[in-house]
Parts: sequence; C-alpha cells; structure tokens
Amino acid sequence: MATAKDMLETYPRSFNVDADTLASAIDALIECGSTCTQCADACLSEDDVAAMAKCIRLNLDCADICATTSRVLGRQTEYDANVTRSLLEACVAACKSCGDECQSHSEHMRHCAICAESCRRCESACQELLGAMA
Amino acid sequence: MATAKDMLETYPRSFNVDADTLASAIDALIECGSTCTQCADACLSEDDVAAMAKCIRLNLDCADICATTSRVLGRQTEYDANVTRSLLEACVAACKSCGDECQSHSEHMRHCAICAESCRRCESACQELLGAMA
Amino acid sequence: MATAKDMLETYPRSFNVDADTLASAIDALIECGSTCTQCADACLSEDDVAAMAKCIRLNLDCADICATTSRVLGRQTEYDANVTRSLLEACVAACKSCGDECQSHSEHMRHCAICAESCRRCESACQELLGAMA
Amino acid sequence: MATAKDMLETYPRSFNVDADTLASAIDALIECGSTCTQCADACLSEDDVAAMAKCIRLNLDCADICATTSRVLGRQTEYDANVTRSLLEACVAACKSCGDECQSHSEHMRHCAICAESCRRCESACQELLGAMA
Repeated sequence: MATAKDMLETYPRSFNVDADTLASAIDALIECGSTCTQCADACLSEDDVAAMAKCIRLNLDCADICATTSRVLGRQTEYDANVTRSLLEACVAACKSCGDECQSHSEHMRHCAICAESCRRCESACQELLGAMA
Repeated sequence: MATAKDMLETYPRSFNVDADTLASAIDALIECGSTCTQCADACLSEDDVAAMAKCIRLNLDCADICATTSRVLGRQTEYDANVTRSLLEACVAACKSCGDECQSHSEHMRHCAICAESCRRCESACQELLGAMA
Repeated sequence: MATAKDMLETYPRSFNVDADTLASAIDALIECGSTCTQCADACLSEDDVAAMAKCIRLNLDCADICATTSRVLGRQTEYDANVTRSLLEACVAACKSCGDECQSHSEHMRHCAICAESCRRCESACQELLGAMA
Repeated sequence: MATAKDMLETYPRSFNVDADTLASAIDALIECGSTCTQCADACLSEDDVAAMAKCIRLNLDCADICATTSRVLGRQTEYDANVTRSLLEACVAACKSCGDECQSHSEHMRHCAICAESCRRCESACQELLGAMA
C-alpha cells in the first residue's frame, strides 16, 4: 500500500512542516472520513433509525469535511497557511461533534464505538498539525 | 431547475436561519465550486502553465471546500452551529485567497476574471450567513 | 452568476463536443447533486424515516456520483472519452434508480417530487451528451 | 486504525457480497484516490509542468472517481447492483487511463511510479469485486 508519507517523500520541492506530523494527519483524516461514511450507513440500517438522525447527519458532515481536509493537506504546491489553518479548525469542530455523538451510542452500537475512536484520533492529529504550524 | 430555496421550502421541520440568506449562500457555494474546477482546468491548458501553478492549487482547494460547505449547509437535520460557523470561516479564507490570485490574472485571462468574481460573491454570501447566524 | 457555459467559452484550447450540450449536462449534474443532498436530509427528518432508508441511500449515491461527473465533465484538458463515457453511464444508472425511488414517494413528499424531476432531467442530459459523443 | 473491514463487521444487517473482497476494494479505492491527489500536486510542482498536464488531469479524475466509488461501496443499506456495477466499470476505466499515463513517467518521477502501482492495484480490486458480484 502506498501511504501519504511515501507520496510526501516524492514531492519535487521542499515544504516547511514536519512530514511525519503532516502524513499522520492525512492518514487520520482519510480513515475518519471513510469510517464516518460507513457509520452513517450502519446507523441508517438500525431498527430505531429515528434515534440515529443526529448521528447520521454529523457523520455525513464529518465525512465530507475530513475528505476535503485530507485533499487540501495532500497538496504542497503554493501552500496557503490561512486556508489550511481555518480548515483544520473546522475539521476539529466536526470531529468533536461527531465523536461526542458517536460516543453516546458506543455502548450499544459497535460502529459508533469504532467511529468515535476514529474521530478522537483525527481531532488529535489535526490539533497536533495546528500546533506544528504555529 | 430546482433551486436550493425550492428544496429548503420542502424541509419537513422548522429551521432557525433566514431561508433566503441560507439559499443564497448555497447557490453561491455551488457556483463557486464549479467555477473553480473549470478555472483550474483552463489554467492547466494555458501556454505558460508554470505561472499558473498557484492559481491551480488554490482553485482546487476552493472547489473542494465550497462543495463540502454547500453540502453541510444543505442539511437542516440536527444543525450544529459550531461546525457550520467554523466551516464557513474556512470557506471565506479559501474564497479570499483564490479570489485574490485569480484577480491578479484577470486582465489577461477571462476564466480568472469570471472566477475572481465568483469567489468574491461566495465570500460575501458566506459572510452574510455568518452574520445572520450570530 | 457564472455558468458552466460562461466558463467553457473561456477555455484556451478547442474541444470537440458541442458546448451547449456539454454545459447543459454540467448544469443538470450540479443541480441534481445538490438536490439529492437536500432530499436525503429532508427524508432523514421525516416522521417515518425507516421507510425512507432506501431513498436516503440512493440520494447519497446519486449526490456523490453527480458531483464527481460534473467535475470530470468540467475538465477539457486532455479529455479521455473512455472515462467520460463510462462515468456518464454510471450517472445515468444512479439518476434512474434515485429518480424511480423518489418518484414512488412524490405524492406524499414534495422534496421527493422535486428531486425525482431533477434526476429525470439529469438522466436525459447525460444521455444526450452520450449521444453527442458517439 | 479502523479499517473498512472492521466497519463492515459492525453492519447491523446482512449483505450478500464477500466481506473481504468488498473491504479490499474499498481500501484500494481510498488509497488510490488519495495517491492520485498527491500525484497531481507533485506533477504541478515539476519543472516541466506543461508535459504533465495530461497526468494532472487524469489524476484529478481518478481521485474524484475513486473517492466516490469508495463511498458508494461503503454503503450496504438497500444496495443497488446496477449503480454499483456501472460505477465500478467507470472506476476501472479511470484507473486504467491514469495508471497508463503515470506508468509512462515512472522512470523519471517517483510519484508517478508509486501512483501507477496504486492505480493497477485499484483496477484489479475493482475487477475482482465485479467478478464476485456476477
């Protein structure tokens, strides 16, 4: 499997953030985006789907925002710190909201338990990258 | 053509932001996302493509961020103000950066001139929605 | 508002499909993708959401596929007929399935009625473009 | 890290395709989509970017199509075989075109060499899933 780190190492110019921190954030974002898509779908197939409406909505938002953030971070050409920083902050907010909601269902639904952990990891990875950019 | 406003009017529950302001933001985001995708591609076919690398990169970011923001705004179910607000702020930053870069090419490239205007309209529509949410 | 047609007219090289047919397809795809996102969300807020699970799922698929197809069609640089054609066929299938499902709810749910029409228009626009490419 | 397989195992209903084959396809699609986004960006920073225009365009298409296909495959609720099959076929076409183009640059550009392999793996994984669905 090719990883974000493998690809960062092939970038033909230099970039000024730590490659490991950046690659960890991209990996966490991709995992979280995909996990949220699958969690939204698993919620949609639960018997009491009405009780999962909030979780589905936050999963859909978090999936979209993580996917977009992973793409923006994957680009090194003419990096824009303002755009990157504000998008990372939006992503932290999305992972926090979705992680909290999934956490609240985690005792009864395994997909929400896994997704909550994925959101927490992604939130941390985005925070760490924000710290490294400061 | 069905518009964002047409669809908002069919939403089965109530929502607490002005429908016209919200619909205007969704419309502007969709237009800007699509225009940025086409502008990135037009830049890629210019003779001096090396000079357009920054514009292409910002167009790609802006396209992704606007598309994601239009989706998040299109969802009314269990609306999350924190996520929405921080994403709108990221979108304002993306539209500002992309609009500035496109503006700088607008005299010589018609696609950048149109795209700069689209970014400005989108930035304003997001700012207006942020104001209405306050 | 900048339209797909406005942007196509600024493309710096020539392209070999009718600009009006292409622009109509892009416009229909963007409208359908956005309408499906809003329809999925409206379905999620219906009282009997369990009955809407199939509609939500097909709306999410159709939203993703239309958005991606509109991006691929928006690019003229080094156009690839095989990719375009097979993606348009996937989009026709998605619009057909989603349109049929929304149609079945259209008497009782206005969002599904509007979305069904949007899917039909998009299916036709994709078919027309496939015909023009032949 | 949570994987597609971990999440498939939590799906509350049954589904009728082999979970390992499905999970392998989702993993390959996510990897390929992300690798293509980074390859497009690396190409954009090459000295002779004009020579990379075709590669950039195909990378952007392949990134969008793989991301969308991974989402559609991640959903089990009310699975639609027609949509899935035609989208997998579009994805095979995109991975083939992008893989061929990246292959042609692989001797001189490490990002294209890695990306070509990622496209080949993804093409195979999609073909295998198409076979398992037959």
